Amino acid sequence: MKELKFIDLKQCILDDNGHVADEVRELARQKKFFLWNIMSSPGAGKTTFILDVIRRLKGEFRIGVIEGDIESTVDAQKMQALDVPTVQLRIGGDCHLDAAMIKKALENLPLDELNIVIIENIGNLVCPAEFDLGANLPSMLLSVPEGDDKALKYPLMFSVCKALIVTKIDCLPLFDFDMEALKINTRRLNDDLQIFPVSAKTGEGMDEFIAMLKQLIANNLQLL
Amino acid sequence: MKELKFIDLKQCILDDNGHVADEVRELARQKKFFLWNIMSSPGAGKTTFILDVIRRLKGEFRIGVIEGDIESTVDAQKMQALDVPTVQLRIGGDCHLDAAMIKKALENLPLDELNIVIIENIGNLVCPAEFDLGANLPSMLLSVPEGDDKALKYPLMFSVCKALIVTKIDCLPLFDFDMEALKINTRRLNDDLQIFPVSAKTGEGMDEFIAMLKQLIANNLQLL
Repeated sequence: MKELKFIDLKQCILDDNGHVADEVRELARQKKFFLWNIMSSPGAGKTTFILDVIRRLKGEFRIGVIEGDIESTVDAQKMQALDVPTVQLRIGGDCHLDAAMIKKALENLPLDELNIVIIENIGNLVCPAEFDLGANLPSMLLSVPEGDDKALKYPLMFSVCKALIVTKIDCLPLFDFDMEALKINTRRLNDDLQIFPVSAKTGEGMDEFIAMLKQLIANNLQLL
Repeated sequence: MKELKFIDLKQCILDDNGHVADEVRELARQKKFFLWNIMSSPGAGKTTFILDVIRRLKGEFRIGVIEGDIESTVDAQKMQALDVPTVQLRIGGDCHLDAAMIKKALENLPLDELNIVIIENIGNLVCPAEFDLGANLPSMLLSVPEGDDKALKYPLMFSVCKALIVTKIDCLPLFDFDMEALKINTRRLNDDLQIFPVSAKTGEGMDEFIAMLKQLIANNLQLL
């Protein structure tokens, strides 16, 4: 009897993606820019958060944005209004960005002029976690209204990120959200995950986050 | 030169899924149960909403639950605490339920004793929309904190649903959520979509939703 050949298509896709992610990493090293991947559920506040970060960093760094969006261009237009070079990836029915899309997007950004490239990933806590984009900082947002139990349900996302930004903390009085429970649940999965509670509405926590980010960018650009 | 053969793997998967969805529909017709698929982002409030619905319908209907969850069993345990037959589908890294999983789950429920089977889908606004599960009522939750622009970004989800339950409306004063904008955005995609604003915290809107649901179930069971 002949040997049964089993091709794990998904693993092939992930392996291929890993190779392209390495190319992206090498490009970031050569061109000396800091690549930051931001993931979250739909509606966790990625766009609002990114716009706030851009306003705070604009004087010091030259920033570019890659916008992942299934259909619309509303977010990309908001970025352009801040006068930052923006590439919109319109990916139709797909549920995540992959490294090849990022490589393509980077070809369309003026990399020699940029220090930071921010990727706004598709709103989804599942598939984006599987695809290494070659980023220096893989990170995620979790909004208070989503609940403190999400690490139990989407463990891979919490495992692959280096920073967890907890958004909409001005809503804490309205929701049964236990920050300590979140910390315990995430620490089980990922000891290195740094947690930053913030509110775009009140500005609370943003100074601390920006200070960490600047330090991280400085360290990375030095290493590059 | 030979013709290049192009196999659209995704379309093959969706076609196969459609056939199994038809089998599920036929099973529901034969066994006379109402199959209700509930989709949403992570943290939109599916579990809380379903628990509330079960409490309100328990006296009148015999209910079973299929729980989709990537890793944990926390939601399934809450359902079992209400003494309803529950099947937990632990699907690992996958980002949606498909009709074959539902068929399998239904084999493990006492269908002859049930009038309603509720499916809690994976928290994701993208992929679950592509997979017909053979449900009588495909529906989605959108929570106020997610924002009123989600139909622009996840159009397929809003197109395939027959009911849109807007949750956490007790938070409306805290968020820039424009219910009229939501209605305009969804009507473009799906003229038949009925919208139900509710709050699990205050109970607002639940009576109206339950009345519609009972009518729908009665009509369906009559037709079956």
